Amino acid sequence: MIKVGIVGGTGYTGVELLRILWNHPEAELQVVTSRSEAGMPIADMFPSLRGKVDLKFSEPKKAGLEDCDLVFFATPHGVAMDNAPALVDAGVKVIDLAADFRLQNLLQWRKWYQMEHAAPELLAEAVYGLPEMNRDRIARARIVGNPGCYATAVQLGFLPLIEADVVDRSRLIADAKSGVSGAGRKAELGIAFSETADNFRAYGVPGHRHHPEMVHGLGGAAGRPVELLFVPHLIPSIRGIHATLYAHLNRDMDLQTLYEKRFADEPFIDVMPAGSHPDTRSVRGSNTCRIAIHRPGGGDKVVVLAVLDNLVKGASGQAVQSMNLMFGLDEGSGLDHIALMP
Amino acid sequence: MIKVGIVGGTGYTGVELLRILWNHPEAELQVVTSRSEAGMPIADMFPSLRGKVDLKFSEPKKAGLEDCDLVFFATPHGVAMDNAPALVDAGVKVIDLAADFRLQNLLQWRKWYQMEHAAPELLAEAVYGLPEMNRDRIARARIVGNPGCYATAVQLGFLPLIEADVVDRSRLIADAKSGVSGAGRKAELGIAFSETADNFRAYGVPGHRHHPEMVHGLGGAAGRPVELLFVPHLIPSIRGIHATLYAHLNRDMDLQTLYEKRFADEPFIDVMPAGSHPDTRSVRGSNTCRIAIHRPGGGDKVVVLAVLDNLVKGASGQAVQSMNLMFGLDEGSGLDHIALMP
Amino acid sequence: MIKVGIVGGTGYTGVELLRILWNHPEAELQVVTSRSEAGMPIADMFPSLRGKVDLKFSEPKKAGLEDCDLVFFATPHGVAMDNAPALVDAGVKVIDLAADFRLQNLLQWRKWYQMEHAAPELLAEAVYGLPEMNRDRIARARIVGNPGCYATAVQLGFLPLIEADVVDRSRLIADAKSGVSGAGRKAELGIAFSETADNFRAYGVPGHRHHPEMVHGLGGAAGRPVELLFVPHLIPSIRGIHATLYAHLNRDMDLQTLYEKRFADEPFIDVMPAGSHPDTRSVRGSNTCRIAIHRPGGGDKVVVLAVLDNLVKGASGQAVQSMNLMFGLDEGSGLDHIALMP
Amino acid sequence: MIKVGIVGGTGYTGVELLRILWNHPEAELQVVTSRSEAGMPIADMFPSLRGKVDLKFSEPKKAGLEDCDLVFFATPHGVAMDNAPALVDAGVKVIDLAADFRLQNLLQWRKWYQMEHAAPELLAEAVYGLPEMNRDRIARARIVGNPGCYATAVQLGFLPLIEADVVDRSRLIADAKSGVSGAGRKAELGIAFSETADNFRAYGVPGHRHHPEMVHGLGGAAGRPVELLFVPHLIPSIRGIHATLYAHLNRDMDLQTLYEKRFADEPFIDVMPAGSHPDTRSVRGSNTCRIAIHRPGGGDKVVVLAVLDNLVKGASGQAVQSMNLMFGLDEGSGLDHIALMP
Repeated sequence: MIKVGIVGGTGYTGVELLRILWNHPEAELQVVTSRSEAGMPIADMFPSLRGKVDLKFSEPKKAGLEDCDLVFFATPHGVAMDNAPALVDAGVKVIDLAADFRLQNLLQWRKWYQMEHAAPELLAEAVYGLPEMNRDRIARARIVGNPGCYATAVQLGFLPLIEADVVDRSRLIADAKSGVSGAGRKAELGIAFSETADNFRAYGVPGHRHHPEMVHGLGGAAGRPVELLFVPHLIPSIRGIHATLYAHLNRDMDLQTLYEKRFADEPFIDVMPAGSHPDTRSVRGSNTCRIAIHRPGGGDKVVVLAVLDNLVKGASGQAVQSMNLMFGLDEGSGLDHIALMP
Repeated sequence: MIKVGIVGGTGYTGVELLRILWNHPEAELQVVTSRSEAGMPIADMFPSLRGKVDLKFSEPKKAGLEDCDLVFFATPHGVAMDNAPALVDAGVKVIDLAADFRLQNLLQWRKWYQMEHAAPELLAEAVYGLPEMNRDRIARARIVGNPGCYATAVQLGFLPLIEADVVDRSRLIADAKSGVSGAGRKAELGIAFSETADNFRAYGVPGHRHHPEMVHGLGGAAGRPVELLFVPHLIPSIRGIHATLYAHLNRDMDLQTLYEKRFADEPFIDVMPAGSHPDTRSVRGSNTCRIAIHRPGGGDKVVVLAVLDNLVKGASGQAVQSMNLMFGLDEGSGLDHIALMP
Repeated sequence: MIKVGIVGGTGYTGVELLRILWNHPEAELQVVTSRSEAGMPIADMFPSLRGKVDLKFSEPKKAGLEDCDLVFFATPHGVAMDNAPALVDAGVKVIDLAADFRLQNLLQWRKWYQMEHAAPELLAEAVYGLPEMNRDRIARARIVGNPGCYATAVQLGFLPLIEADVVDRSRLIADAKSGVSGAGRKAELGIAFSETADNFRAYGVPGHRHHPEMVHGLGGAAGRPVELLFVPHLIPSIRGIHATLYAHLNRDMDLQTLYEKRFADEPFIDVMPAGSHPDTRSVRGSNTCRIAIHRPGGGDKVVVLAVLDNLVKGASGQAVQSMNLMFGLDEGSGLDHIALMP
Repeated sequence: MIKVGIVGGTGYTGVELLRILWNHPEAELQVVTSRSEAGMPIADMFPSLRGKVDLKFSEPKKAGLEDCDLVFFATPHGVAMDNAPALVDAGVKVIDLAADFRLQNLLQWRKWYQMEHAAPELLAEAVYGLPEMNRDRIARARIVGNPGCYATAVQLGFLPLIEADVVDRSRLIADAKSGVSGAGRKAELGIAFSETADNFRAYGVPGHRHHPEMVHGLGGAAGRPVELLFVPHLIPSIRGIHATLYAHLNRDMDLQTLYEKRFADEPFIDVMPAGSHPDTRSVRGSNTCRIAIHRPGGGDKVVVLAVLDNLVKGASGQAVQSMNLMFGLDEGSGLDHIALMP
């Protein structure tokens, strides 16, 4: 059994890790830390865990994280970079669900997260935890930067087109929509029920933190720079990301076959039949990303629809998928949830 | 034209006052204050007002509130009691939408609001602003305490039964449900979308601030004390209060007729046909309270269903109704909105 | 492995049975019938099942249901009573998720469901499938009538009070609220999004089909008739039942201890700490019923709050719980889902 | 006073017409027809109208529509084309809220609506009712085809760019999102609450009925054909359209100024400050379309955000706006609603 620790268990990605790991056949939850809630039974904060998880939140300093085999950081940006180096030195593998180990470019890190990076050496060795792109490197990694939720949907949706070099790399558009839980568990007016329910809006059109991560990943897959216009929106739903991706074909190709082949061996990518419109609820609570490809009118425009659960394939599920790879387990271990529908 | 000021225009009751007053044929908005947002155009905070309301928030001290004919306090509890006395002394009429002038009993005030009352003399003269109960007194009042949203629904629903003395006064139950906007416009985890959507729960079962106000009002109508069990719940909707009221008949009576007669002249009470189930959306944005009376199986149990919009008849609309009375205007002036449905 | 069939797999209780049974370690899904959709892969109708369930809907007549060990009827009222007798005769155990085998009283059946009962003899032997009440009888049953969702919440919430004979049996009130999925998967204006979202209302105040079932169950537990006033409401949420139960104590007792003792060995009843307010999301997707007991002001009124997921403990999960009992399996087999939160 | 009739008052656009016209100072509602509900008081179907609208639904044949000055058709596609000619011949002006008089091209009509057009001559004279494009022609029209909701948002958002000829006309993309009420008031599984709440999906990617209408309008504004990729999505909200529009600049220009100038005299277009993100709730219940223009990174890509209420500016409000023009009234008469927020 792998001994697992979670730093920062009071957010949505933390409680989702607990939900997934509780059922994981080869991982054992050792410790969950919270500076603010040390001593409180976790199930007091999250009654959904009553009768299942009986751990208490631990004080981070005294938690014995260095005795774990793997530690997840489900913390705000900037925490993992301070604490991961000592753990990695102690032989503990680390997966950060925040952004600290996603961006190799230190200038971009500083620009988008407004702080100096505290562990540039460890960053240099960190692997970007998108298994469909970096499976082998994740398997050998000591530290993984878990992708952002938008970034997962957008990259998975564009990947076959980019790898096959069939679209104009300077004209990619990602019109993405996310449920409100993507903003995290916090007291903030902008995500209050009365501000977001029965409402819809774009945000961050001038620029969004997930943008450099997507451009970097897709550029890597292309072997050349890509230009991507990314516009996120807020859906009045709890979970779910829907990415509507637009590209311009530069040569003819059977795209349905392209996608089916590219993802044939991927356990968590479901290429839907031609003509499909995946809905976010079809992946609610599951680690699957469902993708459909359209070519309206048979012309040179491609529309890719990709959906995932931002807290599972977009966060905690993907992190567990990486954990499985890092310890040589079955990649899908503990991740066979059927979506909750309706 | 009545010159109107609003103290504290950044909450939901404030913006709802602006929506209503903007269309009011005999009131003119002079000033809206906000300590934190002084200088900002109101429509920058509430884009729904763009092109209509072109006032800016004013610094309270320099706002010239004493030049108004009437000032609404749409502030947190405890603000009006500090500021209303000087205004009333200056001849300005005051309506407080918070609780400062609702409870005549100072011990209860202290118990439920955890502060000393700053204006006990003014409180003694304040009128409880439920027109269906206190119309004449409101018309003569210098200061009005606008009822709580739950309190309005529960009192209006029970009133005919209590006045006619046909139910057991020791066995009243109010199972009430409110949309999330009743909690106000604020940064608070408990009202975040991801915490309240697709969810339902009771709260405050051991005790709720609106309870003394209801018991006082109903007791006054009865001429004797009443016992009321009040259980509030949170609906995953923005607006709307639904009160399901239970009482035990102590003698036979045609209740449908009782209610129709009692409210025959009330412009904002709609007694629905026997057998009806009013829904909250049927009053969304309007000042109407719709009521239906049931007597399941024809027995001695009564079930009253009462719905209203917590921000209109439960707050700002009712306050404007009182204003109309205080200035001798048509009681419904500015309040003829049809509910927004769907 | 138990061979399982499902008659009528196109509704919400059907797809929920599929979600649960797919993970069940000792049950194997053999056949799912649908008259209207025979031949269609189930996952074409429910994309959430893609990559998991690869069965097709079968024509009921040719489905070979008689070769199953157990057949669930997830059909409209009136179907199971026509088809269950032949299956039971063939040695197949049957659990009906509709109402055909819930009401022993044929007059009430006719009154509420407007049809003659087609299998009165089998009805006479049928066991009401509430394990917390009838565990031993379910274990020996050939046919089980699975309780209604409201009926489960109301009976579980009142049971300890009734069994201990500490409340006035003539003054029980159940103010219950249900998510919209309780109405089933169908084309009906009244459950359209634009009719139910941002809205709240009571319905069926004059009478509801679940009432006789609750009165019968609670009366059986009391050994004497009970009177229950039941008022259902529609929550703008997908899943979740919240029952707010009111009773009048006829003698003093430590209710928290009463409930904790009564349910100490129940795997799916969670008695929460005194003062709690359970929310429906804390059981979303799980088979748990969470209960909290209040005695406001320490007086003689009791308020019980009970929540469950209408499609799990209120339908398909409870049916699987009965199946486990009928085949001598661990009662919780296949039912260890943690609620999906948020 | 203009005498107004409504054919088909049982849908959402019908009840919204009633809400708007009831307050209209210069229009008087004479008759509302419904084949299925003739004789029923309208307020029995829509309790939101109780105490305001006291008309009953009339049998269409006997309704005396020919005595009206103007008749709105709030009917399914195909009804107005059968009935409008006789009314127009009788001197009654007609506004059709369905599609019968939107598409001048009969082949496209047949392709998208699967029926022969019954009144091609009248269609030839019909004016497309987008005041911002066709104000003068509407003022002189005998018959107006009211634009589709998506079509209104998309055309208003693109119009300044197209008229100024500053974008590549072959690369327009409209990623549009609509609340569920856009699908109408009907019994249909796909719009049931449990199917659409907490969910998000695209639909009609291969083709949508509003597409020819948009291409025709924008092509007319350009004086040359345009190519537009249109992808609609379903928001789990009741009202609201959000169009996210993408275009490629072919020369530099100050777009903020372009939009502000183009719409300077438009009473119902609100060009927001640079950098804004309009939300759909800011127009809920109002006839305003709010627009914001972005040029991320200052490059050659333009992102336009346009929001409107699909039942007001996207349907009934726009129809009343056209009525005002047709009768020489103030264009905004009866349309000064402030959005209901929150």
